[in-house]
Amino acid sequence: MSAGYLEQGKSTDRATFDLYYRHNPFRGGYGVAAGLQDAVQAVSAMQFSPEDIEYLASLKTAAGSDFFTREFLDYLRQFRFSGSIRAVPEGTAIFPNEPILQVSGNLIECQIVETILLCHINFQTLVATKAARMWEASNHGAILEFGLRRAQGPDGALSACRAAYIGGAAATSNVLGAALFHMPPKGTQAHSWIQSFPSELEAFRIYAALFCDDCVLLVDTYDVLKSGLPNAIQVARELEQSGHHLVGIRIDSGDLAFLSKRAREMLDQSGLDYVKICASNELDEFIISEIISQGGRVDIWGVGTKLVTGGGEEGGALGGIYKMVELNGKPKIKLSGNVEKITSPGIKKIVRFYSDDGLMEADALAHVAEDLRNDEIVIVDPNNPLRRKKISAQNRVELLQDIILNGKLVYDFPSLEAIRQRRAQQLSALHESYKRLHNAHEYKVGLTQALWQEKEQMLNQATV
Amino acid sequence: MSAGYLEQGKSTDRATFDLYYRHNPFRGGYGVAAGLQDAVQAVSAMQFSPEDIEYLASLKTAAGSDFFTREFLDYLRQFRFSGSIRAVPEGTAIFPNEPILQVSGNLIECQIVETILLCHINFQTLVATKAARMWEASNHGAILEFGLRRAQGPDGALSACRAAYIGGAAATSNVLGAALFHMPPKGTQAHSWIQSFPSELEAFRIYAALFCDDCVLLVDTYDVLKSGLPNAIQVARELEQSGHHLVGIRIDSGDLAFLSKRAREMLDQSGLDYVKICASNELDEFIISEIISQGGRVDIWGVGTKLVTGGGEEGGALGGIYKMVELNGKPKIKLSGNVEKITSPGIKKIVRFYSDDGLMEADALAHVAEDLRNDEIVIVDPNNPLRRKKISAQNRVELLQDIILNGKLVYDFPSLEAIRQRRAQQLSALHESYKRLHNAHEYKVGLTQALWQEKEQMLNQATV
Repeated sequence: MSAGYLEQGKSTDRATFDLYYRHNPFRGGYGVAAGLQDAVQAVSAMQFSPEDIEYLASLKTAAGSDFFTREFLDYLRQFRFSGSIRAVPEGTAIFPNEPILQVSGNLIECQIVETILLCHINFQTLVATKAARMWEASNHGAILEFGLRRAQGPDGALSACRAAYIGGAAATSNVLGAALFHMPPKGTQAHSWIQSFPSELEAFRIYAALFCDDCVLLVDTYDVLKSGLPNAIQVARELEQSGHHLVGIRIDSGDLAFLSKRAREMLDQSGLDYVKICASNELDEFIISEIISQGGRVDIWGVGTKLVTGGGEEGGALGGIYKMVELNGKPKIKLSGNVEKITSPGIKKIVRFYSDDGLMEADALAHVAEDLRNDEIVIVDPNNPLRRKKISAQNRVELLQDIILNGKLVYDFPSLEAIRQRRAQQLSALHESYKRLHNAHEYKVGLTQALWQEKEQMLNQATV
Repeated sequence: MSAGYLEQGKSTDRATFDLYYRHNPFRGGYGVAAGLQDAVQAVSAMQFSPEDIEYLASLKTAAGSDFFTREFLDYLRQFRFSGSIRAVPEGTAIFPNEPILQVSGNLIECQIVETILLCHINFQTLVATKAARMWEASNHGAILEFGLRRAQGPDGALSACRAAYIGGAAATSNVLGAALFHMPPKGTQAHSWIQSFPSELEAFRIYAALFCDDCVLLVDTYDVLKSGLPNAIQVARELEQSGHHLVGIRIDSGDLAFLSKRAREMLDQSGLDYVKICASNELDEFIISEIISQGGRVDIWGVGTKLVTGGGEEGGALGGIYKMVELNGKPKIKLSGNVEKITSPGIKKIVRFYSDDGLMEADALAHVAEDLRNDEIVIVDPNNPLRRKKISAQNRVELLQDIILNGKLVYDFPSLEAIRQRRAQQLSALHESYKRLHNAHEYKVGLTQALWQEKEQMLNQATV
């Protein structure tokens, strides 16, 4: 496409693209924006190396001639992103159909950066949202990211680690991730540690002697209640005698609700009410919620697969897309038989309205230059204009911020700690009805009247 | 754990671990082994840099003292993998509970390489299996890997690209993947190409003029049947007049079965029976199969999300695990209330039996030194000893091959082309009942009598 645009003299055409998604992941009520920093750094660093050019120059058409012209390869050789990017900050609660990132620039550069932006933002937003859902389901409990061995290779695991931290994970078993993102590294021993000693008791004792103040014991190698817990309790008492305290026990299989309740009783009856219970084994937000509702006594949740893959029936990927909304100053639309695939034209801003109690009421998508200071705003559902909402809240915040202006980075990337705080603040401003795991209420995002009228007019013109 | 093993003088203990999975991915009847080369190269290259050591040295216990001893950090500083790895070659059809990779070495090195092995092999095996299922569902049709924007970051996308190629994808839209893996790079234009010209017809014409012998036209920007196809047919005729041929059209939304049938009719009626039809839009093996069974006329399948994430209800991750099976010459077992989580002790070989018609009959897991040349072999299901199978086939192949011997690579990694051929041969030797998408027949993998008796004896001893 870029070769075609260059050939057609369109390399100086000015375009704007919206990056957005159409459905909240996991059939939920919100998303948590993540991945911006990696995406933007990749765009800033993007260039074609001599080896890249050599490879592209080697490609042939079906007829055997060069696929790309020398002119195009020369264009790529000097390529740097010189456009502008606006985006919502990482950690922001986001919703379907709002442009969480906007790229403006010449047509070629807008097109070339599409995939790298989607790749980073789709995945990290998916995982950050999953982590946030687990964090909410656990009543803001301690979530440990244990997913490295089930991630998409070592680098997928690192992206997942960062996004999980943004979304609410407290620590990780990925030591490189811990080092890179200043997260606490956490873990326990594996079953193989227990198996490598003559008895479970001896395996516990030796581990406790080595890591006396940081010791979590895995109690399900042989039998949780008959072997693991009695041995752990004995070792906890021995630790007390030497002035230390067992941090916790970990249950990695079986009925986690039942076992954690019995474990809590056995520990408490032994005067070990300070010993925490860690549970793991294919957990997700639904299982966490059920264990809690059944009275399970879990303090720490070790989650792996479902967190780093965003797995489950409705998961596995965020369907973020990247659509042209303006070209050379003119709004653009894409039609479709699926109404949700019809784009909303024009360069927009996202205005978030807050009630006086500090809760989010709705988001309006408006023309970037539109004045929204009038008293009454009615927004129109972009997928069904029959659905409208009058916004009564008066407190408003614009979400999109300048990140890159004409190729120059103008944004100070916040620390991961600051992003985590933003996520927590955002979710606390979201009414609990939007945070339900099942049948979450739909947060309203709509077009202003002006934007809707423009979309309708373009629809009428384009319908064939 | 490694620090503990060193402190306990166990750094010279000899261990063996099995890497295997318990359930075929996607509720299917088989897996396709992939990821070995990346996993083994990572293990061979594994070492701790001065920066790694510095980070580990900075970690503190809860009580504020150094977490790791100087002795352990010195151990890591000189760490290289000096053990041995045996594995089934990439492209092999594999089944639950068989050790597709075995690591023998000292206890510490066996433990340290666990996660990197699982990370590569779990993910690539998942994606190769998904690709193979799509390839089978499409009757060995043309599958294009289009998943970069939905993968776990750029590197996850590359692993996915390689594994998809192993499993049966014919080409990729990931140009870096194409360059690295010698795959054909393939793609069409995006909707934004069409939108960036005054009309769809003009957008098609210009693209066709540029890429006259490699041109696939995206026909669903406005309306497939009323606009996209008539315009594509016109451009195809214009191409003919200049001595070229339109390669294909692509439909990316709507009812793909219906639209592809109508498109085929319209193309054929225009004398364009050579123009291929490419379909895309959240495809997986189930949807491909249904489109074909409804008479859809798709020649090329563009698959993204579901392929690179292995997504879907039962997907998202392969649950590969890594369990100790021997220590210092003695078999080891791990018990569990879940019978499938009870390990099968001892160092094993996998013997695959083929009938005279060339089909696979069953796999026996035997002691590595066991003589299986006697006439009758009865295998026992590792998860339920009530289930047994007498093997009648006489042709046998051992699956595990030496990859690393005492730290030295002894295996010539085959080309991806050779791995693809192996996958195709393996799947053609698998009866179709194992390849059904729903209720696939269960291929029998069992322990020899000798191995089962040893497992039973250890179970009896270990039960508490």
